[in-house]
Amino acid sequence: MEAETGALPTKDDFSGWYNEILWRAEIMDVRYPVKGLYVWFPHGFAIRKRAYQILRDLMDRDHQETMFPLLVPENEFMKEAAHIKGFENEVYWVTHGGKNELDVPLALRPTSETAIYPMYALWIRSHADLPLKLYQIVNTFRYETKHTRPLIRLREITSFKEAHTVHVTWDEAERQVEEAIELYRTFYRRLCVPVIVSRRPEWDKFPGADYTIAVDTIMPDGKTLQIGTVHLLGDHFSKTYNITFEGADGEQHYAYQTCYGISERSIAALISVHGDDKGLVLPPDVAPVEVVIVPIIVGKRRDEVLSAAAALEDDLRAAGFAVKMDARDLRPGAKYYYWEMRGAVLRVEIGPRDIDANTVVIVTRSGEKHTIDRRGVVEGIGSILAQFREEIYGRAERSMADQIRIVGTVADAAEAVKTGVAVVHWCGSKECADAVEEAVDASILGSDIRSEHIPDSTGPCIVCGGSGKSAMVARTY
Amino acid sequence: MEAETGALPTKDDFSGWYNEILWRAEIMDVRYPVKGLYVWFPHGFAIRKRAYQILRDLMDRDHQETMFPLLVPENEFMKEAAHIKGFENEVYWVTHGGKNELDVPLALRPTSETAIYPMYALWIRSHADLPLKLYQIVNTFRYETKHTRPLIRLREITSFKEAHTVHVTWDEAERQVEEAIELYRTFYRRLCVPVIVSRRPEWDKFPGADYTIAVDTIMPDGKTLQIGTVHLLGDHFSKTYNITFEGADGEQHYAYQTCYGISERSIAALISVHGDDKGLVLPPDVAPVEVVIVPIIVGKRRDEVLSAAAALEDDLRAAGFAVKMDARDLRPGAKYYYWEMRGAVLRVEIGPRDIDANTVVIVTRSGEKHTIDRRGVVEGIGSILAQFREEIYGRAERSMADQIRIVGTVADAAEAVKTGVAVVHWCGSKECADAVEEAVDASILGSDIRSEHIPDSTGPCIVCGGSGKSAMVARTY
Repeated sequence: MEAETGALPTKDDFSGWYNEILWRAEIMDVRYPVKGLYVWFPHGFAIRKRAYQILRDLMDRDHQETMFPLLVPENEFMKEAAHIKGFENEVYWVTHGGKNELDVPLALRPTSETAIYPMYALWIRSHADLPLKLYQIVNTFRYETKHTRPLIRLREITSFKEAHTVHVTWDEAERQVEEAIELYRTFYRRLCVPVIVSRRPEWDKFPGADYTIAVDTIMPDGKTLQIGTVHLLGDHFSKTYNITFEGADGEQHYAYQTCYGISERSIAALISVHGDDKGLVLPPDVAPVEVVIVPIIVGKRRDEVLSAAAALEDDLRAAGFAVKMDARDLRPGAKYYYWEMRGAVLRVEIGPRDIDANTVVIVTRSGEKHTIDRRGVVEGIGSILAQFREEIYGRAERSMADQIRIVGTVADAAEAVKTGVAVVHWCGSKECADAVEEAVDASILGSDIRSEHIPDSTGPCIVCGGSGKSAMVARTY
Repeated sequence: MEAETGALPTKDDFSGWYNEILWRAEIMDVRYPVKGLYVWFPHGFAIRKRAYQILRDLMDRDHQETMFPLLVPENEFMKEAAHIKGFENEVYWVTHGGKNELDVPLALRPTSETAIYPMYALWIRSHADLPLKLYQIVNTFRYETKHTRPLIRLREITSFKEAHTVHVTWDEAERQVEEAIELYRTFYRRLCVPVIVSRRPEWDKFPGADYTIAVDTIMPDGKTLQIGTVHLLGDHFSKTYNITFEGADGEQHYAYQTCYGISERSIAALISVHGDDKGLVLPPDVAPVEVVIVPIIVGKRRDEVLSAAAALEDDLRAAGFAVKMDARDLRPGAKYYYWEMRGAVLRVEIGPRDIDANTVVIVTRSGEKHTIDRRGVVEGIGSILAQFREEIYGRAERSMADQIRIVGTVADAAEAVKTGVAVVHWCGSKECADAVEEAVDASILGSDIRSEHIPDSTGPCIVCGGSGKSAMVARTY
């Protein structure tokens, strides 16, 4: 199962780099015999597992995990007209069981509103049942006709975390939207991935939502990747699925709802934002291997080195680090290459000289070398990992800031979107958005921007000159 | 979302009891509008989450977790003739994407051999790549035409843990079968569920396997529930999917394989084996609430009681217990009923008298009362939980032993299977098995039995009088 050796394409060729790193760092195998479906290699899945554990822990603070069926009967699926319209060309249909045609075709959920909300209608009776905050982590399906891409544009989204909340008032639902945004910010901060939060234009919102707030990051090629969305659904779905509750006033009311999701695009962002020409660079919190121990075996002190390495491994494991000893019969250089590709955060080399000096030599994935006392190794490694986390977050932040240009003309916007995001003033009309998109070959991504790198200001619309607000223009994945 | 109150059917009416407890203890909701698909309530999912964490931890010792696509193209699915024959009437087919008919119909995996093994053929090159031991926890699908039942007979199995291993020799694969059996035994020991291991008759083995070893438990109504299977696949699939490796001899060889699975039937077993007429009884390791604290509020010492309860909650949480304080405005009796139904292992009542005496009163789910010193509460609870674990395992073991009858005649077997498992001698022939099944309205379940309650002996076949071995006869789920 070992991937090929040799140099990666440089990150300047992002698309080539991305495809190669998925293979060489053993994230995904693209050779599964159906377009748009991919296989998680164990190493990729180990990253996913750690990242989603962080997400689960954050959700579990005040949500409950649950699980609804994949298959949605056609009649339930077809109830919500605006929602259907958004998905009708993208839904996979199960029509046969064995050799029998089914009486009612079953949709593979593209997202679970139509599976969950009929049950919410049964579960919710009184205001005392609210707020209700549930989530699930499941596979969802889209019959993508566009170019598919591992982790980014998929026919089976294997790792969709979707939350569905129900509230007494619209205002309470809106507060939940804000809480969800904060939760997603916290999640991405743990992944050291900088994000920009903004409000999607009307025509880009979730089918059936009052509004959609999106979380984006900027990929190395300057395109944005939407890595989280939060939707205020209002009472649109509750009216369709009859989700009502008895209020404190004794009357029946329609409930207000939100939903919000994150998928394995979070892993795509993680890989793309931090990786370099040597392979993966992973934040310690998600790296399957935080510390790899490479024994440097020199002639007759072999056993002594191996037992010192094993003792170190035990100490580090007991301290809670994700540690791995690589005692394979390979040259140290080959091991360095192997673990750099796979994003091991720290490499500890241990040889006779280290044993004699009672020290440990640590090399970070960035190439920094530290020599620390063997007795203080747990604290030392803890502090080097903490530094590393801040270092890669800082680098990602600076890199994102460099990709953002505040511009005043359409021509400058056209130039800016070649390498990143253009920030313009825009009046909010579809007409002016269409004009921008035509001129710069990129879309209006969102307004009401929340980012320390982007002032949310007012000014004349870049197209019509009317009163405008800050908006992002970008090429998107 | 609160379930109804009132008494459960007694466990003598097991089917009625099972259906009611799923609802009242908030395990599964059966009202999803497709037959055979059910919704996990949060409380049920919390049990599933803890149980599957135990399973994952056991698997992760020497397997790697991965994830393969749900959809299997028809041509790959149809390659393995014996395998197809076993599943062809049970497979759901996706035929449409949006409004387009697909070129190649896609099967929803009933199990993942046909999705995984084409990839194994690409991954495995050399004996150095072996053994390969991967697993995944996924949803799988069966178009069940029989009566469906939550957690037991499903159209969507939401929680299928399937492992697929590859080996250099048949013997090594057989050793893996033994390791898998041990792993499953360990898992069920943690769930305090007693099991019987046996070899399935030829005609009941997994389609395409050399042989199948099954793990069964006996349900309260005397029927057996298969809660794990381990298959030695030999080189049957490797020949179909061309899984070969270069041996130490430089030649290409077909690999030998095993696969083994556990589903949410493990949760059905857990609930059914331990539950009583008051509701769930859960082993501490999987109980979402190990300790519920019920403050006993008496008049003016309300704040004092609540703060003592909160301090206790903090101490227990810090010690790693799954603890919950129930400060709802309900009578204590209503809370006791509520938590007994949901399987909270221990109830701690804390009132003014306890504060004055600096003691804590603990009532176990079995109704045993312990008064312990407040200062020793963490150790005290740890030891009561450990006792409880052994107590419910012991009870379940004794109850299973009582359900097994070693019999010498067909008439006695017919009587024994009304309340449990009959152990007979059987010659191994299909003819005699058919004769037994017809006479006793139950099936030959397996031979080569491994259970301390069942001697694996030889004797005359209960039907033909020829040379026979111990075999179980049972009604099965």
